[in-house]
Amino acid sequence: MSDNALLIMNAGSSSIKFAVFHSREEEAEWRGQVEGLGGSSPVLTVKARGSDKPTSHSLADADHEAAIKALLGWLEDNVGHSALKAAGHRVVHGGQQYAEPVRIDEKVLDTLETFSDLAPLHQPHNLSPIRQLMRLRPELPQVACFDTAFHRDQPWIAQQFALPREWTEKGVLRYGFHGLSYDGISRQLRQAYPSLAAGRVVVAHLGNGASLCGMRDGKSQATSMGFTALDGLPMGQRCGALDPGVVLWLIQQQGLSAEEVQEMLYKHSGLLGVSGISHDMRDLIQSASPAAKEAMALFAYRTAREIGSLVTALGGIDGLVFTAGIGEHCPEIRRAIVEQLSWLGFELDKEANQGNAEYLSRPETLPILVLPTDEESVIARNTRKLLALG
Amino acid sequence: MSDNALLIMNAGSSSIKFAVFHSREEEAEWRGQVEGLGGSSPVLTVKARGSDKPTSHSLADADHEAAIKALLGWLEDNVGHSALKAAGHRVVHGGQQYAEPVRIDEKVLDTLETFSDLAPLHQPHNLSPIRQLMRLRPELPQVACFDTAFHRDQPWIAQQFALPREWTEKGVLRYGFHGLSYDGISRQLRQAYPSLAAGRVVVAHLGNGASLCGMRDGKSQATSMGFTALDGLPMGQRCGALDPGVVLWLIQQQGLSAEEVQEMLYKHSGLLGVSGISHDMRDLIQSASPAAKEAMALFAYRTAREIGSLVTALGGIDGLVFTAGIGEHCPEIRRAIVEQLSWLGFELDKEANQGNAEYLSRPETLPILVLPTDEESVIARNTRKLLALG
Repeated sequence: MSDNALLIMNAGSSSIKFAVFHSREEEAEWRGQVEGLGGSSPVLTVKARGSDKPTSHSLADADHEAAIKALLGWLEDNVGHSALKAAGHRVVHGGQQYAEPVRIDEKVLDTLETFSDLAPLHQPHNLSPIRQLMRLRPELPQVACFDTAFHRDQPWIAQQFALPREWTEKGVLRYGFHGLSYDGISRQLRQAYPSLAAGRVVVAHLGNGASLCGMRDGKSQATSMGFTALDGLPMGQRCGALDPGVVLWLIQQQGLSAEEVQEMLYKHSGLLGVSGISHDMRDLIQSASPAAKEAMALFAYRTAREIGSLVTALGGIDGLVFTAGIGEHCPEIRRAIVEQLSWLGFELDKEANQGNAEYLSRPETLPILVLPTDEESVIARNTRKLLALG
Repeated sequence: MSDNALLIMNAGSSSIKFAVFHSREEEAEWRGQVEGLGGSSPVLTVKARGSDKPTSHSLADADHEAAIKALLGWLEDNVGHSALKAAGHRVVHGGQQYAEPVRIDEKVLDTLETFSDLAPLHQPHNLSPIRQLMRLRPELPQVACFDTAFHRDQPWIAQQFALPREWTEKGVLRYGFHGLSYDGISRQLRQAYPSLAAGRVVVAHLGNGASLCGMRDGKSQATSMGFTALDGLPMGQRCGALDPGVVLWLIQQQGLSAEEVQEMLYKHSGLLGVSGISHDMRDLIQSASPAAKEAMALFAYRTAREIGSLVTALGGIDGLVFTAGIGEHCPEIRRAIVEQLSWLGFELDKEANQGNAEYLSRPETLPILVLPTDEESVIARNTRKLLALG
């Protein structure tokens, strides 16, 4: 039981991830999720810190609203109503406006809803539990932390597309995402590798979603994702960088609807599309299929080339950081990427890489690190800081 | 008068450029164009080698067909019917099939027409005079030289998008363009800078259309243009690299038609869109407007970043070549690009750059060259070679 708890939420279309933090602690006391929303048998799963036995609760037929109620019920039983002091939320889009976390009121929430058309697949799901908590627990302070905020530091030139000025002014910009992850990595670097943190670093957030951030002195100088979460690196199911003429050709010459193209680019491309086997890098690593190898090679090749582009934005490079699922746990992919960066002065220590060690590079070569991403901790820290919670 | 002449044609939507070569000569005897097609007063302009006084002929109300007839009439009068031995054409798209120039017959022409949906704005205009010459001068050998052919040497991985496999197999690839220009530069390098030609070189073809090619040993390893001529660098009126999600958003959220988006991305973006002033770099250089400076800066920034990506594909770099209108004649833009590449070991000699000299780099730094592009000469050479003309 905690007498001063923080609820952190990361709500998507079919799942709601959450964590509960004691007020002064860096690590979550509980982590859990509701999965299978939209299906007939959603399940609430929770794991206590230090335990490897999660508990599961069936939530037959629950929709998003019922799931939130069930989650509040669980909190009531396990944390206590009065112990919950605030909620912090991951919100994908903060538009041009929010470069920092913000305390949510009706007006802020209305503004955030206007950004829904910039991220129609994510933003409405992020906002829906905020609106619901506001109704169910109106006294509870809530904070929104944005995936775009970290990149508002980017120089203006890195944010621009070469589009007609009126569209740039309407907000068609390279916002970039995964900012909570980059924020957390930037902080870890400052604490554990301060001289590297002050230099030019590329952080590779390689998960089912994947992007890169070029940082100087811990601040975003450029990032591989653009206006949406579709651009940049190939991902589990997303295409990454694509000639815009392909979208026009699919619609104009092949007769696809915009919705069909959206479905193709978000759901059937990337590792899944190239391999024809799986969106999950672990499956491809296990597979003997040439198409699986091709998908892995393309992922590494495009990542290396985008790193080359970011290094140019930084004017050189002092170190490389891998994070997120693939970045933290796939030695094969790290090796395939770093081999293409040897001309920059990077070289892996084979054993350290194979063992997913924190420090991976050979002596006398540029540092390569693996650092764990933990977006919930970043949200918790930001929420406490904004609300001046102890 | 020539007794053994070659007609070289580069036909677009509103203009037809042409050149006439003596059989053994590297330089064209005549160069000319028909401009204003589709308008009410097209004009045929021709300039003889060594002359600075072009002659003009009004072709009132001529359409493409009438213009070709007028051109043949001019050839009759100035070169002679029997002297014309062959015609060589610039054709933008050779699909996956053509990695070399090809002699045209009915069957080849039918195949080339199937590539029209890959380049609907260019391919039909390239092919129309071929069809017409076939009818008017059926005995005249004709050769097609492709803008895509030079890049068929690219490794497969450089040609792939991370799309569903069936679309890759249908030919949705990074074809790349400006191949006739790169072919010519590659040849000039082999002749004048053989050791550099054997190494890793990025060629920047910066004209109203703009792209980059990374070469190793004179062969294309990667290029910035993709499936269409829209991708990669910002251009006079084209956007260059763009998050595909922007195209979907413009259609789905803003209600634009695919045709309107196409018009925006091909005609109203790039230097014109960002500056709001002109698509012509010369106008922007003259302008005191901050928006003009912003467009120039964005062009240089995106070019430098794409060069970083290509250098990674090459695994390092030995030299840089500028060509085409901006590349050959704009010291300001070369300076802005090279300043962002100093970390690679490039440094301009200020005076050489200002004077558009051939060799631009300071002693002890990596070579930077300016070489003239001449696509007509490449077509002439390829045509002669294929037809074994003397």
